[in-house]
Amino acid sequence: MLKDYDPGKPEDKRKLNDEIKTRRAELLGQQQQLRDAKVPVLVLVEGWAAAGKGSLIKELISEIDPRFYNVVSPAVIPEKEARYPFLYPYASAIPENGKIVFLDSGWMEDCVRKVMRREITQAEYKRRVRQVCEFERQLRDGGYIIIKLFVHIDRKEQEERLASLLGQADTEWRVTAEDMWQHREYKRFREAYDSFMEDTDTTIPWHVLNGGRRKEAISGALKLLTGGIAKALEHGRYVGEPFEEDFPLKKMPRLADVDLSPSIDEEDYRKQLKKLQARLSELHNVVYRKKIPVVICYEGWDAAGKGGNIRRVAYPLDPRGFDVRPIASPEPHEINRQYLWRFWTRLPRSGHICIFDRTWYGRVMVERLEGFCTEKDWQRAYNEINEFERQLTEWGAVVIKFWIHIDQETQLARFTERQNTPEKQWKITEEDWRNREKWPQYEVAVDEMLQKTSTENAPWYIIESNDKLYARIKALRIVVETLEKACKERMAFDLN
Amino acid sequence: MLKDYDPGKPEDKRKLNDEIKTRRAELLGQQQQLRDAKVPVLVLVEGWAAAGKGSLIKELISEIDPRFYNVVSPAVIPEKEARYPFLYPYASAIPENGKIVFLDSGWMEDCVRKVMRREITQAEYKRRVRQVCEFERQLRDGGYIIIKLFVHIDRKEQEERLASLLGQADTEWRVTAEDMWQHREYKRFREAYDSFMEDTDTTIPWHVLNGGRRKEAISGALKLLTGGIAKALEHGRYVGEPFEEDFPLKKMPRLADVDLSPSIDEEDYRKQLKKLQARLSELHNVVYRKKIPVVICYEGWDAAGKGGNIRRVAYPLDPRGFDVRPIASPEPHEINRQYLWRFWTRLPRSGHICIFDRTWYGRVMVERLEGFCTEKDWQRAYNEINEFERQLTEWGAVVIKFWIHIDQETQLARFTERQNTPEKQWKITEEDWRNREKWPQYEVAVDEMLQKTSTENAPWYIIESNDKLYARIKALRIVVETLEKACKERMAFDLN
Repeated sequence: MLKDYDPGKPEDKRKLNDEIKTRRAELLGQQQQLRDAKVPVLVLVEGWAAAGKGSLIKELISEIDPRFYNVVSPAVIPEKEARYPFLYPYASAIPENGKIVFLDSGWMEDCVRKVMRREITQAEYKRRVRQVCEFERQLRDGGYIIIKLFVHIDRKEQEERLASLLGQADTEWRVTAEDMWQHREYKRFREAYDSFMEDTDTTIPWHVLNGGRRKEAISGALKLLTGGIAKALEHGRYVGEPFEEDFPLKKMPRLADVDLSPSIDEEDYRKQLKKLQARLSELHNVVYRKKIPVVICYEGWDAAGKGGNIRRVAYPLDPRGFDVRPIASPEPHEINRQYLWRFWTRLPRSGHICIFDRTWYGRVMVERLEGFCTEKDWQRAYNEINEFERQLTEWGAVVIKFWIHIDQETQLARFTERQNTPEKQWKITEEDWRNREKWPQYEVAVDEMLQKTSTENAPWYIIESNDKLYARIKALRIVVETLEKACKERMAFDLN
Repeated sequence: MLKDYDPGKPEDKRKLNDEIKTRRAELLGQQQQLRDAKVPVLVLVEGWAAAGKGSLIKELISEIDPRFYNVVSPAVIPEKEARYPFLYPYASAIPENGKIVFLDSGWMEDCVRKVMRREITQAEYKRRVRQVCEFERQLRDGGYIIIKLFVHIDRKEQEERLASLLGQADTEWRVTAEDMWQHREYKRFREAYDSFMEDTDTTIPWHVLNGGRRKEAISGALKLLTGGIAKALEHGRYVGEPFEEDFPLKKMPRLADVDLSPSIDEEDYRKQLKKLQARLSELHNVVYRKKIPVVICYEGWDAAGKGGNIRRVAYPLDPRGFDVRPIASPEPHEINRQYLWRFWTRLPRSGHICIFDRTWYGRVMVERLEGFCTEKDWQRAYNEINEFERQLTEWGAVVIKFWIHIDQETQLARFTERQNTPEKQWKITEEDWRNREKWPQYEVAVDEMLQKTSTENAPWYIIESNDKLYARIKALRIVVETLEKACKERMAFDLN
């Protein structure tokens, strides 16, 4: 995709300035329309060192109201981010509805630099390219406008620019050792950029700008930006089509077929609880030292006993190394972003354990049933979630998902008890009763969810919880066994 | 405050277990009351290495519903946080209304360790102690319950515990070089802890627990926690009294006395704009290299021209090194925390420039006039804000505050123009008209704000903006001159 540019005639500055002025005015007008249409825009600006990415962004934003945009430089993200998945900084940086985010180099530079430095293997590089395609598609399908720009300069141009920067005390510090290395390895970098762009050109196309012709580049970028926005605004916010994707799925029973009779007597419960908690406490140390990230998901019927179950799993853990994330209805700044954003930003650091009390599966349950998203949205979500969880396990995470299960009679008994016990009344709301009336619809949704998202890397476990004690022991045992296995396999675990 | 404990009789485990059980039940019941009363609780757990802080916290949280608490370990905050003010990690970690945050060591360990390592001077240590007192008082006055615990063990006990940890392959890694150093320097650490506690015991008292007697420590901590909560709940959410504090203030004119006639002709404007922007661009490099954090605050009348003014200041800046933070009405998770929280979490990193489009001064303007806080709250805010800004400048930040000023006729003309220009209509809302009717009340509030918060370290500048061009040049010049001065003074700037 990167060709040598014919120097050609010099730029027609006057004409280009007019063009830039017109486009800027257009962009200014689009601000309000974007806001009204609640459409978010992500502009990825990649390119060579010293190609002028920063100054291009400066020109793009110069007329936009600061309330409508943000510039994000993942390049300055410190090493700490190495403790999160590859896509984490980008997924965290996506704009809210109606706003524009400019990424000053992003996932492309990240991938290319790491593979060039041999910090990741070719296999891992391929996985990341696939993850990038998934990520871009998910955003697009969720209504995001994505514009991908690459600012290209040839080797000679880069040489002159680096020399000029190095020539002045004031700008010398801007040239890093990395930049010089890139320049020396220009040819190899060019191949790497080319190949990355070819591999990621399908869902969202790349646009190469000639950084050697500054005004043309600015005018070109503005044209792409306003053109992309205009097109999207014309058709209204895009909603992606559901799609089929192959994941290795575990066979799950229908909820109706689950035998809820298992129970445990109290003495046996105490004995096993103590033993399993002691073991989990030891494993937490290993998980921490081996830097394995652990994600434990709890879903289940109201009053199924999620809270008490979570407490028993959490009790033996070192509070410094785990978090429970209770997921309530999204706040405005969360609703205004792609639905996985509020989970991306709540992920554990490597070596930490995160217990989600309700999860991203809200998309295919409450959001589906209450009409908080379109049918296409929740139908797409099965695959999107499978992709998301695969991204987590490819990062190195252990993902365990529990459906805490009870029958309708048990729920009624527990609701009634809550209603009649003053210190438990806060746990029961009108909404719980309303949800209860929708039990049959929820059962359909849960069954479909279990069938479609119990992947081998992130399986569902149905926890029979008519007897809460039994449920706690079963969940604890699954956590312990899964972590045993993970800790054994990863003798010298290396985070991707 | 740290005395040698008489070993005394062994613990009465049975009695203590009963006590712990009772207290836990009490705490469980308080959850709901805290939520209803919207009272947040911050529990600071400090203490010796190997004293059992983590395991104490584990016992405190074991029965609490995960939706009601969070454990935060600033100890694991990586070096990156060194690019923020000393209090930043703690101010960022404060709980929401109705929730409890347990800090697993915090500002005390941070201060003591840094001064012991001679990473900060005695003078800086004293400033930090003062900042801690300010921080604790502000939270308390804002309705926070704060419980400060110190888990104490004597030298011999620490020796045995470290030896036991080091004796097992499984736990060996938990003992750090820092811990061993602390143990060697036990006596000096003890003096340092003692002196820190004495200096910070006034607003919120310290409680020393004997870590050598585990059950007693747990039971004691639970008693303090439930007792503190019960007391606070009995009296309802606390609202602190306004107080007087001496700050070196600059003399400010009344708004009514400001001459709004200054203007500039367009040619002169273009010339000066170009010159000042070029200089600001150079200064941004210096600011970046010297790691000076810069905070530029914009307040002003609706339609005074804040947006256009900000854009002219932002244009020459490298987008990688600055952010504009537009401040809208707070979201639920923001309203539910002390009012400065959403500004703490938006501070620039050192070397970066942050432009706030509206600021924390909303407290003494819109919140005051619309009754969003009590009279005591906004009256206290003048000093609280002066303290906050002093904390910023002591960190090393440059703080510049602009009041963009116009008269009522100019506002009316601009409102009318917005109303009549289709592409500007989004900028004008019903609320703007309503605010306009309250001009006299706002003027009183703004005058009081300018009088009380124009400190020498963070002064206000009134920018006459009936002529927007004049206003832009004046603001740019102040930014340039202030940064010139800061860059010159800090030849070898060292962040506190």
